[in-house]
This record gives sequence, structure tokens and C-alpha cells, in this order.
Amino acid sequence: MGSERKKILYVVGIGPGKTSGMTGEALAALRESDVIAGYPVYLELLPEEIRGKEQIATGMTREMERCRLALQAAAAGRTVSLVCSGDAGVYGMAGPVLSLAGEYPEVEISVIPGVTAATAGASVLGAPLMHDFAVISMSDRLTPFEVIEKRLRLAAESDFVIVLYNPESRGRAGYLKKACDILLEKLPPDRAAGYVRQIGREGETAWVGHLSELREQAVDMFTTVYIGNSTTYISGARMVTERGYVSHAKQ
Amino acid sequence: MGSERKKILYVVGIGPGKTSGMTGEALAALRESDVIAGYPVYLELLPEEIRGKEQIATGMTREMERCRLALQAAAAGRTVSLVCSGDAGVYGMAGPVLSLAGEYPEVEISVIPGVTAATAGASVLGAPLMHDFAVISMSDRLTPFEVIEKRLRLAAESDFVIVLYNPESRGRAGYLKKACDILLEKLPPDRAAGYVRQIGREGETAWVGHLSELREQAVDMFTTVYIGNSTTYISGARMVTERGYVSHAKQ
Repeated sequence: MGSERKKILYVVGIGPGKTSGMTGEALAALRESDVIAGYPVYLELLPEEIRGKEQIATGMTREMERCRLALQAAAAGRTVSLVCSGDAGVYGMAGPVLSLAGEYPEVEISVIPGVTAATAGASVLGAPLMHDFAVISMSDRLTPFEVIEKRLRLAAESDFVIVLYNPESRGRAGYLKKACDILLEKLPPDRAAGYVRQIGREGETAWVGHLSELREQAVDMFTTVYIGNSTTYISGARMVTERGYVSHAKQ
Repeated sequence: MGSERKKILYVVGIGPGKTSGMTGEALAALRESDVIAGYPVYLELLPEEIRGKEQIATGMTREMERCRLALQAAAAGRTVSLVCSGDAGVYGMAGPVLSLAGEYPEVEISVIPGVTAATAGASVLGAPLMHDFAVISMSDRLTPFEVIEKRLRLAAESDFVIVLYNPESRGRAGYLKKACDILLEKLPPDRAAGYVRQIGREGETAWVGHLSELREQAVDMFTTVYIGNSTTYISGARMVTERGYVSHAKQ
């Protein structure tokens, strides 16, 4: 019996924070699992019943090690969930795990999507993502800064709504200012902008204002930043983008 | 008492299809509601207990009317959920509702995010969204085609992973082929690509292959299309993008 049991690794996006932001499918996978793997900060966000399970926790930069440990535990017959904040497939662990899949052919890998920070933060601000958008990470750990810079320029030229993940960290102070200065070469200073920090978590904060003011804001790796397109407007504390370039009145 | 009751309109993203893809928060809002508003096709995806409630259903193109009816019902004291497929803030109803908010100041509008098709479909294909990406709708109902064309070109030049929403419809036959031909001006024919149809619903189908083959595929408005960046690879039936431009071996 034991050897015939399916060997499963779930790669689970738990949404941005609170348990109620998790899908039923994600919660079911966590409940079914014997072992929970993940970055310690994310494991702390899980409900009590899940946190009590056996854990595989490694530091943030030891991601490939965490993936291997999770795959090894699954190969040994444990049902394992590897937990990611937001969606497992957006800058998450789904890619690294799948890159190792060939070494563990006996393990069935199932990626379970979650609400990503881009859309969760958007719901806090109003509706900034009503039209085409580009998601750009400001982290240059694995990406040359010139690539990030080029994407910012072309995204502005494309009139995309722009979402910045991981805008700054302790090692990357001043990156939001750099991003804003690049964008301000193409975009007007009064372009609508906003951010949400600690989305769906204790101490959630949100801000909306103009792009020229955004560059003065203090943000960190738990902040998601939005720069509107040419139709985005601020109404009270909300940031809303039109659904197209034709007035609603014409519908 | 009645006049002091909070007047609430939830704008709810129910995820791509199956009930287990809905967040706990979304399900709670639907349960709390007296009235459910939405496009009939999406209302049919809801669990039995929710479908039994009073409904406001209008056709797909009568969206502003649906928003007004939902706001009016909320203003009259009913708790209302306006349902959107995927995320309410991505090409959804959050924007139109908020654009009318000023006319119904007594109604508290709460946008509840959901898993959007981009990340739900990505989880079916593997992990195509591991790096920066652009989401583009092929619908030219409210957007001039020249804007769409420009975005496709610049997204390819930016080496974004590209996600196409609503690639074709009965009235827009041949649009995927047009998009591929524009992208093929910049991208190699063997660029990794894929699509998922009816994500999380009865009859879900997925395909991965090369960009040159993508242009021959039959898709519809219920299909989400992916075109990889320069690091995206196909492994078996999966489409995976690297997390950066530095080999994993260096981590």
C-alpha cells in the first residue's frame, strides 16, 4: 500500500496575507499535507491548524534548498505543501520546483494559484488595473538593472498601468526614486500613483497621489506600487483606471 | 434600525471557475448578500446555496446598467454582491462601479479580489509568469487596435512574458493570428507559448508549443494565451520561465 500511495508536492499560493484571502483549494491542500515548507514569515501567516504540522523552513535566499527538501520529503512518501505568499507562480516557487521536477519523476507536482499582490493591492486602492498592465520587479538580484530600466521606459511608452513588486529592500534603498525618475522622463508629474503596504496583513497601509510625490515615499519589500495609465484618475482615496479609451457615455 | 443598517455593495472576484478557486472572503460576501448581480454565465458557476438568492442578471454588454441596478439595490438597503469572473479589478466591474460611486454616497463599496485568469492559467501550464509580465486584452471594443498593436510590439521588445486576455470572439476572428504576426516581427518562431481554455471549468484544455504554431490555434474569449520571454522553456507539457537572467547554478 505504502509504495503505491501517490507522491504529491503542492506548490501553494496562500494569497497576500489573511487566511480569508486563501482559496478553498489552497486550504484543502494544506490540510491534506503532512509537511509544510516555506519561508518562515509566510508560515506564520497560516491558520493555527496548519502551523501545527511538521515544517521545513529555510531562509529567504536558500530557496533552491527549500525546493529540494520539499521534493525529497514528497519522494519519501509524505504529502508536502510548499507555501508561497500571493500566487505561487508570480516570482514564486513554482518555477524553481518545476526546474527540479526531472530529478524526482515519482513526485506529482501540483501548482495551486492564489491572489497575487497586484490584484489584492488594487482592490485596496480601488480599481487601478481596469486596463492592460505590466508587472515589474525592482529586484536586481537575478536581473541586470538595465533590463529593469528598459522595461520601465517601454511600459511607460506603452501606456500600461505599471505595478512594481519589491520596490526597495535594505540592500536596494532609493530604487523607487530611481524608478520614478525613469518614468518621469516619459510621464507627467501628476500621473496618478499609489501603493499598498502589508496587503491583507496587520498594519496594512495605502497611499494615493501623484507620480512626483510617489518618488518621496518610503516603501519596502512588502509594498506593491501602482503607476496609472493616461486614463487613471484619483477620486477621494481611490485610484481608478478607465476600461478603455472610449468614454463610458458611448456604451 | 433599518435606516442605520450599513448599505454595502461587494464587488466580488470569484476566481476563474470552480468554487474551490474562490477565496474565503469572497464566499463570505456572497453568503452575507441578499442579492447577487452578474453576467448569467458567471452566476451559473456559483455554488447552489448562492444561486438560490435573488438575482440581478443583465446581458454582457449592459454592464453599466448592471452596476446601476446593483448600486440601487444596495442604496435601498439590500446587501448586494456584484460578481465578476477571475478578479473584479482586472477588466472587471470594480472600475465601472467606482465611477458611479459619487452618485450613491450612502453605499459602501468593497472590492474583493480573486484569482485572475493570468495566474490561474499559469498554474495549469506550469510556471510561465516567474518573471516580469504584461497583460494585454485583445478586445478592441473600447480600445483602438493601434494601441493594442503598439503594446504587443513594445512588450516583445521589453522581453516581458505576455498574457493575452480575450484573444478572439465571434466578432474578432483571426485576432490571435494578427497578434502572433506582430510578435513574430520581434520574436523567434520557436519562442515558447501556450494557452488554457475554460480554466478551472468543465472541459478545461491546455496547449503548449511554439509561437509559430500558436498562430494556427483555435481560441475564443474563454481562452488565456501566454507567450514566453527569452528564458522560457517547454519541458514535457509544461511552460516554465526562469526567475531571472542569472543561472540558478549561481545562487
